[in-house]
Amino acid sequence: MLDAGARRLGRCHNALVTALLTDTYQLTMAYAYWRNGTHDRRAVFELFFRANPFQGEFTVFAGLEEALRFVSNFEFTERDVEYLKSTPVGENMEDEFFEFLLGLDASEVRVYAQKEGSVVFPRVPLLRLEGPLATVQLLETTLLCLVNYASLLATNAARHRLVAGQNAMLLEFGLRRAQGVDGGVSASRYAYLGGFDATSNVEAGRQFGIPIKGTHAHSYVQSHAGWGCVKNPKLVAADGSVCEDFPALVLEKMKSLEAIRDDMEVDLRWSETNTSELAAFTSYALAFPNAFLALVDTYNVLQSGLPNFCAVALALRELGYAAVGIRLDSGDLSYLSKRSRAFLRNIERLLGTKIADNLSAVSITASNDIHEEVLYSLRQHGHEIDAFGIGTHLVTCLKQPALGCVYKLVEVDGTPRIKLSEDIGKVTIPGCKNGYRLFSQTGEAIVDVMTRVGEPVPKVGERMLCRHPFMESKRAYVVPSKVAPLFDLVWDGARGVDPQVDLSLETSRARCKESIRQLRADHLRYTNPTPYKVSVSASLYDFIHDLWLAEAPVGELR
Amino acid sequence: MLDAGARRLGRCHNALVTALLTDTYQLTMAYAYWRNGTHDRRAVFELFFRANPFQGEFTVFAGLEEALRFVSNFEFTERDVEYLKSTPVGENMEDEFFEFLLGLDASEVRVYAQKEGSVVFPRVPLLRLEGPLATVQLLETTLLCLVNYASLLATNAARHRLVAGQNAMLLEFGLRRAQGVDGGVSASRYAYLGGFDATSNVEAGRQFGIPIKGTHAHSYVQSHAGWGCVKNPKLVAADGSVCEDFPALVLEKMKSLEAIRDDMEVDLRWSETNTSELAAFTSYALAFPNAFLALVDTYNVLQSGLPNFCAVALALRELGYAAVGIRLDSGDLSYLSKRSRAFLRNIERLLGTKIADNLSAVSITASNDIHEEVLYSLRQHGHEIDAFGIGTHLVTCLKQPALGCVYKLVEVDGTPRIKLSEDIGKVTIPGCKNGYRLFSQTGEAIVDVMTRVGEPVPKVGERMLCRHPFMESKRAYVVPSKVAPLFDLVWDGARGVDPQVDLSLETSRARCKESIRQLRADHLRYTNPTPYKVSVSASLYDFIHDLWLAEAPVGELR
Repeated sequence: MLDAGARRLGRCHNALVTALLTDTYQLTMAYAYWRNGTHDRRAVFELFFRANPFQGEFTVFAGLEEALRFVSNFEFTERDVEYLKSTPVGENMEDEFFEFLLGLDASEVRVYAQKEGSVVFPRVPLLRLEGPLATVQLLETTLLCLVNYASLLATNAARHRLVAGQNAMLLEFGLRRAQGVDGGVSASRYAYLGGFDATSNVEAGRQFGIPIKGTHAHSYVQSHAGWGCVKNPKLVAADGSVCEDFPALVLEKMKSLEAIRDDMEVDLRWSETNTSELAAFTSYALAFPNAFLALVDTYNVLQSGLPNFCAVALALRELGYAAVGIRLDSGDLSYLSKRSRAFLRNIERLLGTKIADNLSAVSITASNDIHEEVLYSLRQHGHEIDAFGIGTHLVTCLKQPALGCVYKLVEVDGTPRIKLSEDIGKVTIPGCKNGYRLFSQTGEAIVDVMTRVGEPVPKVGERMLCRHPFMESKRAYVVPSKVAPLFDLVWDGARGVDPQVDLSLETSRARCKESIRQLRADHLRYTNPTPYKVSVSASLYDFIHDLWLAEAPVGELR
Repeated sequence: MLDAGARRLGRCHNALVTALLTDTYQLTMAYAYWRNGTHDRRAVFELFFRANPFQGEFTVFAGLEEALRFVSNFEFTERDVEYLKSTPVGENMEDEFFEFLLGLDASEVRVYAQKEGSVVFPRVPLLRLEGPLATVQLLETTLLCLVNYASLLATNAARHRLVAGQNAMLLEFGLRRAQGVDGGVSASRYAYLGGFDATSNVEAGRQFGIPIKGTHAHSYVQSHAGWGCVKNPKLVAADGSVCEDFPALVLEKMKSLEAIRDDMEVDLRWSETNTSELAAFTSYALAFPNAFLALVDTYNVLQSGLPNFCAVALALRELGYAAVGIRLDSGDLSYLSKRSRAFLRNIERLLGTKIADNLSAVSITASNDIHEEVLYSLRQHGHEIDAFGIGTHLVTCLKQPALGCVYKLVEVDGTPRIKLSEDIGKVTIPGCKNGYRLFSQTGEAIVDVMTRVGEPVPKVGERMLCRHPFMESKRAYVVPSKVAPLFDLVWDGARGVDPQVDLSLETSRARCKESIRQLRADHLRYTNPTPYKVSVSASLYDFIHDLWLAEAPVGELR
């Protein structure tokens, strides 16, 4: 049982996260262990992945806070057991087993983990769990579910941030296309962790304190059929005075813009912009004089949306309000953003700063089917976009919608277990291991190295042989200037969550940024990044290969 | 307000499905409508998609039950409003607006929908919502979120069923790789709807009454280090007699198998199969003598797993139990399944039916990275697989992880709205519409046709001109033998959910099967399927094009 004073985390926001949120075979295995009297053998499992996603060379670890919530609350209720008994699977199980299930919790389990938000690499465990065989086995599926998507999404977000640059504002807009409700809400959370600035998802904003952002849709513009749809024309100016007819002021500005038509560098008939769109912008500005951001592509950006925006922005300015900006949701975003910026500069120049001060500095948001590659291409071709709204590609991780984390047994009762495979990438590294990140003098991460538990900790200034786990010829001596242990004991059996562990989203977000900053640029670059080295100590290398030899399979048939 | 006797559905299982599970811009738009006095204008929105997923020519509509739960419970709570007020977005809103939000529900909204589980096609609305502009706008994002993934997943499942054939058992194994908890649970639900037989996900089994299935993992085998790990050797036979040492019986069977070694068609050293694996199978059989299904590829299928399985199966048989089967989780599934079946047949033949009756009829399950294309290839190359466990590709819809449902305004206060676009595929079909599926004499679906509300219903035996909505030359006369209306009024304002509507999962699952059966084979085939025709009536065609002309944009700049 958990200690009375154990630090436990509250239940997961999703009521579906129960002990039954698992694969049936975890329960059948638990039963077989129990029936066989081996359920209490001391097992060590590791949760890790074999390849970085998105053809990249790094991954951001996320989902730890949710995983620990699950571990904190792990138990089988009477209701769970009743359900199990009612299934054909449960019919094959003895009643005493259900009693056993009802008594289970994670008080005999220890969880070691890398830090949430940190950069992680293939084969180095994200989590190591130690405890009774049946219990630790029962945790597998849920932990994988909670870590896989969280880490995939955080990595995807971090990759978008890298290619967009630190100054761009990145907005997560994916709820409508997410894989289920939780897919949407988790996406907002882990996009923020990975470096996004805000989400459109209000519920996620509430759950996790993420800034929320949004303006209006095409339907808002379409719902307006001319000026008849603007029913409340009065606007209180910033200084408290009242403008009785804001639409009239907008039309006046439209005329002043038409007057400079000949000096503009585009051939534009101001009188032929879409009136319904102008009415929609006007009504929106009436509602949000302080936060006027207009979607300008419902009809035609350069011939209608942008001119209409300018008229409203100038009217707002006359009343002491600064327009926020425009949003582009279609077309060639590089071209349209540059043309839009030039157009705004032109007006500012022609009308003078008194009338159009800062008009050209408004924010340009782009939001049509944007993904990493689009951001990369925009960077190549130049653009004038300040903020990107990114949806489908981000939240569904369209480029690679699953991270292949696995959960492998590495030790039972102190005896190491190795999983062999004809595919060398699938051979597991046996036994309980420690892990360290070694840094160069300039503070760059050089290598992650795994050692056997009990080996001395790598020392600053002392050279250490780092070996590829499977390829004999790949090895190098490293003299670290800093050594950071990778694993923390985050869940300590009956004592619960280590009180030192800070699981807040803001901390993980800051850690993600810092952890990526410590990587060499060639590991991070978009095209053909260099793999970061993951190695084992000489002692662990020998251990792996001795065990491999001992467990060599019988002759191959083909 | 909803009527006292209104049929409402219970809250969604996920507590995150609130009125705030939406994009911020829905709230800013709602505010702007309210501020502008246009929030009560009568709007019609349609939810539809523009292209079938997975390079296919059909989609299965799913998510309606969840959507109606959301509509049933749609309301802003004090807590929601408090959160909104605390955000920068809410700071720009007047207090009276929050009062307005607190009074909102779906009692003035009508929802028309196609039937859950039925086959649907591009541009024909899945849902049509009518009601106050601000209210119906506020429902958008959540409805999209609930319908998009559900329909995508059900379609993916149905496609797997089509290529696997009606006799294969299809098992959803995707929880660990799903995009979040809900992604996993929804995947199980909609995979079942689309034609899967069972899930590994126990929680989904409980929530939706889906059969659960599972056996054991590699870790179970690995956790055994020799016979020392089998601590409880006693097994009660089917007739109630007791076998005191089941492992000894297994070893005896192993010897009897070794005796026929020279007559087997493979060169197999029975004494060299992996002992730990044999011990693991034995302990698993001790736990599940009635349900023994062994994962046979931990070491080597043909040299170890399969022979070990046979020894245990024969021992079980002697005690009156029939082994269920084997699972293959790696390698060439076509080859291994055929070799395995031949091996089992061989033993059955050599030992005779008295000892090995039905051994060759055990089930072969395959479960390694299976997807539609693998199933297609297996069908081409032949196989002996009875059941497929399908995970990542199914639940993340790896081939296309998002369905692009959109939600478009088509009418305000009785005035049709059209959304134009340079991309003809993105032009919306304006106005409130009806839809019908026309069938041939043989019961095949020929065409879906949309008409204007108020037009006569297409009549059986009467020819009707069906036109492509945008291409003048594409049109044909159809004489239907059966006419099925596509839309039902499922949510009738204050009266709630139509009591006639059966939203049960089993009904939707049966409907899916039947609805696919009504399609011609060429629409369903895996390679280059023929598009199913979606058309409009002559009257609707003229209406679209008149409106298009009237709203033609000002001249193009590029």
